[in-house]
Amino acid sequence: MASTKLNYRNDTLMLGFSDLKRLRSERPLVLTGGRGIRVFDERGRDYIEAVSSFYCVALGYSDEELIEAAIAQMRALPIYPSAIDRTVPAVMELAEKLAALSPMPQTHVTFATTGSEANDHLIKFIWYANGFSGEPRRRKIISRWSSYHGSTIQLTALGGGSDLHRSFAVPTDECLYVSHPNWPGGAEPGESESAYGDRLAAELRSVIEQAGPETVAAFFAEPVSVSAGMYVPPAGYFTKMKAVLDTYGILLVADEVVTGFGRTGQFWGTQTLDIKPDCMTSSKALSSAYQPISAILMSGDFYDRLERGSTEKGWFAHGGTYHAHPVAAAVALKTIEIYERRNLVAHVRAIMPAWARGLAALKDHPLVAETRCFGLLGAVQLKQPGDGGAVPASLRIGGLPAQVYQAGLEAGIIVRPLANCLVLSPPLIITTAEIDELFERLTRALDQVLKDMPAE
Amino acid sequence: MASTKLNYRNDTLMLGFSDLKRLRSERPLVLTGGRGIRVFDERGRDYIEAVSSFYCVALGYSDEELIEAAIAQMRALPIYPSAIDRTVPAVMELAEKLAALSPMPQTHVTFATTGSEANDHLIKFIWYANGFSGEPRRRKIISRWSSYHGSTIQLTALGGGSDLHRSFAVPTDECLYVSHPNWPGGAEPGESESAYGDRLAAELRSVIEQAGPETVAAFFAEPVSVSAGMYVPPAGYFTKMKAVLDTYGILLVADEVVTGFGRTGQFWGTQTLDIKPDCMTSSKALSSAYQPISAILMSGDFYDRLERGSTEKGWFAHGGTYHAHPVAAAVALKTIEIYERRNLVAHVRAIMPAWARGLAALKDHPLVAETRCFGLLGAVQLKQPGDGGAVPASLRIGGLPAQVYQAGLEAGIIVRPLANCLVLSPPLIITTAEIDELFERLTRALDQVLKDMPAE
Ligand SMILES: Cc1ncc(COP(=O)(O)O)c(C=O)c1O
Ligand SMILES: Cc1ncc(COP(=O)(O)O)c(C=O)c1O
Repeated sequence: MASTKLNYRNDTLMLGFSDLKRLRSERPLVLTGGRGIRVFDERGRDYIEAVSSFYCVALGYSDEELIEAAIAQMRALPIYPSAIDRTVPAVMELAEKLAALSPMPQTHVTFATTGSEANDHLIKFIWYANGFSGEPRRRKIISRWSSYHGSTIQLTALGGGSDLHRSFAVPTDECLYVSHPNWPGGAEPGESESAYGDRLAAELRSVIEQAGPETVAAFFAEPVSVSAGMYVPPAGYFTKMKAVLDTYGILLVADEVVTGFGRTGQFWGTQTLDIKPDCMTSSKALSSAYQPISAILMSGDFYDRLERGSTEKGWFAHGGTYHAHPVAAAVALKTIEIYERRNLVAHVRAIMPAWARGLAALKDHPLVAETRCFGLLGAVQLKQPGDGGAVPASLRIGGLPAQVYQAGLEAGIIVRPLANCLVLSPPLIITTAEIDELFERLTRALDQVLKDMPAE
Repeated sequence: MASTKLNYRNDTLMLGFSDLKRLRSERPLVLTGGRGIRVFDERGRDYIEAVSSFYCVALGYSDEELIEAAIAQMRALPIYPSAIDRTVPAVMELAEKLAALSPMPQTHVTFATTGSEANDHLIKFIWYANGFSGEPRRRKIISRWSSYHGSTIQLTALGGGSDLHRSFAVPTDECLYVSHPNWPGGAEPGESESAYGDRLAAELRSVIEQAGPETVAAFFAEPVSVSAGMYVPPAGYFTKMKAVLDTYGILLVADEVVTGFGRTGQFWGTQTLDIKPDCMTSSKALSSAYQPISAILMSGDFYDRLERGSTEKGWFAHGGTYHAHPVAAAVALKTIEIYERRNLVAHVRAIMPAWARGLAALKDHPLVAETRCFGLLGAVQLKQPGDGGAVPASLRIGGLPAQVYQAGLEAGIIVRPLANCLVLSPPLIITTAEIDELFERLTRALDQVLKDMPAE
């Protein structure tokens, strides 16, 4: 392995979220196979994918039914863009299915290719709708500082937060930020859960008032902030936020890219968190990531405003080559059928206690500051042992989280180092025995890092 | 058919580039199969796809080799994001292959999911590179007014042009626009090809000077503007533009999303048009559209600046779940292998004369104002018969182009109505016999529209 690294020279491939200098000389982890919750590297070593590849591979890495669905569509018609009054049956069926599953009234559905496209396009749609409803000045989008909504320029701005986003110098003129909810970590000493929620709603109100309510279009939020480090809002948070938004006629958009399809213990995160959104975006588990597809779900009221604009203009001048790719739509349809047939939400609920126990058991580890648990999600916040202090919360991958990540690879587990945490989000099909194995491997990694630490 | 339409009520699915009101009550064209250059609808009718589905299905709709490549990757590992120092063999090989094929020195490659993501992300990268090279003020991106570079907010702004883009009210603060080159249509009466090119370069210089050269980052251009209506620049255009850009240290980005992989008669449009880009974006024919994938190709000089930023920050904080999807990468690898093995560029060159003849023959039709031809691309500009006058060049789908489009469906051909044109871009595998059939069907559509016109 050492010699492979020494001989390695990468002069072409740039990978995401990596140190480009290191990439030149160190061979990346090259994955060649997958089965269930595990992936295999080129040397045949296996890893439990405790993040299901960026929170997406809900059905694990070897679901033959999904593959068969892809093959059938590819053999029939491997590609056709859903645009200019043309589409394919799988896309029509998928839209119907999502509308039927949607918690919003009279849901209309359109598709994009990635979670980023879904969020980016929805902002375009909102500006369009406002322009044709006599409110062209309503443009600003509120998000929670340090959230993650995607990779396009507009979404990088919406993420706000760390100087990693800022290093791309994206314009943030249309963005407003409020604090990230994090119960109990974000509350002030002695602050009750309800008082904390009230304070966050008051902050929202004040941000809106300062910006001028007539300039604010929408509030984007993940039900539970997974990509930000797995933070859970205080009880009643969304009801309180929604009440403020309603006062000013501001839309609530639920980014369900991660939280949809059972991850939180109900079908949608909006259900678990009791959110009443005007629009939703979905991706990742939508196709168990076997194919790139994302969906924008819109309440009837919102959609009607798009239709008004389209009628005035003669068409809705927006689309994309790979929006609603037929193979991806066929796979998504099959994915949802499997969720329902195998009752995956019930499975998640059945294993949630084992998941919570496994996480809680980590709390005693000398490197663990705290753990957070929600549905089949988890975060392990790290600290230096003894009174060595907290790990900085920068989003940068480095320090202790990166060390545990590396030790995890040796122990056969892939976790997501993020800020001062390890975020966990295993495939939804995981069993209780596999949960035990996952935490065994993670504990081994933590132990190894502790053992390797220089004695004080 | 009429009765299907009468009974039809669509309360869920929104399609791109469509009239949303009409979509409610008229069943879209539902495509269920494909073979070679043809697709089939739910009634079993066949259509020659004269646009290869938004200029992308280079190998036609039934290439079993591509399907086999997808199946093999899905069975091995159906998804793994290429990020955080992890990737899969197909992505590594595809990067090497594209670097080897690239016309730029020391090409580095990274991937995204769609053509839009590639262009959007590249703008982010440019801002990042400039920020870490002491030129943070270099932010403005120049494009040709009324071009098409994609669907994200930033690219909708870059497209500029028609009020269709404007209806989304995207911010254009970072955008500068120059005229679209169109030889000979855009030249002034009596202006020579060379004088026209000089004038366009002078316009570029003046736009840069007015904006302040130290604020300008890059110039984005398609080698041949296909999505804008298939316009060809005057000879020497890019050499002249590049000379101006070089004076000011502004990057030249070639959007090869449509023009790559033989479409223009050479492997890259940059080769055919003699362009020396600093960066390139690619998608569509990259995978023959069987799978969503796009690539960003960067010269070594440019990439080094990203690496510098990454070294300063500790990582390059950008990525996406479906960037470099393994199944898409495997299909793209196979696609390029097929282009080379079957020598598709030579095939395109061999059939180009038949293509040019077919287009030229349309010129005599009473509804045709002019035709444009380049490589295996074409545009048929329409006019009212007699001296009924020109068709407005608005990008909106309507009027005469829409009528011919509809008549085309009856005649079994799918064309792209765009502005006052029909744009053509058949699968690269088309044969001369099929070219004849294509123009036969198109002529039938034109004849039908002419016949149905009210007598004056
Ligand atoms: C909450 C959330 N929204 C949007 C996205 C963007 O999705 P994609 O990576 O498919 O563009 C992500 C990706 O991790 C996400 O976590
Ligand atoms: C020149 C050009 N660039 C970029 C794009 C955007 O590609 P996509 O539709 O895959 O987002 C297109 C799409 O037609 C295009 O024609």
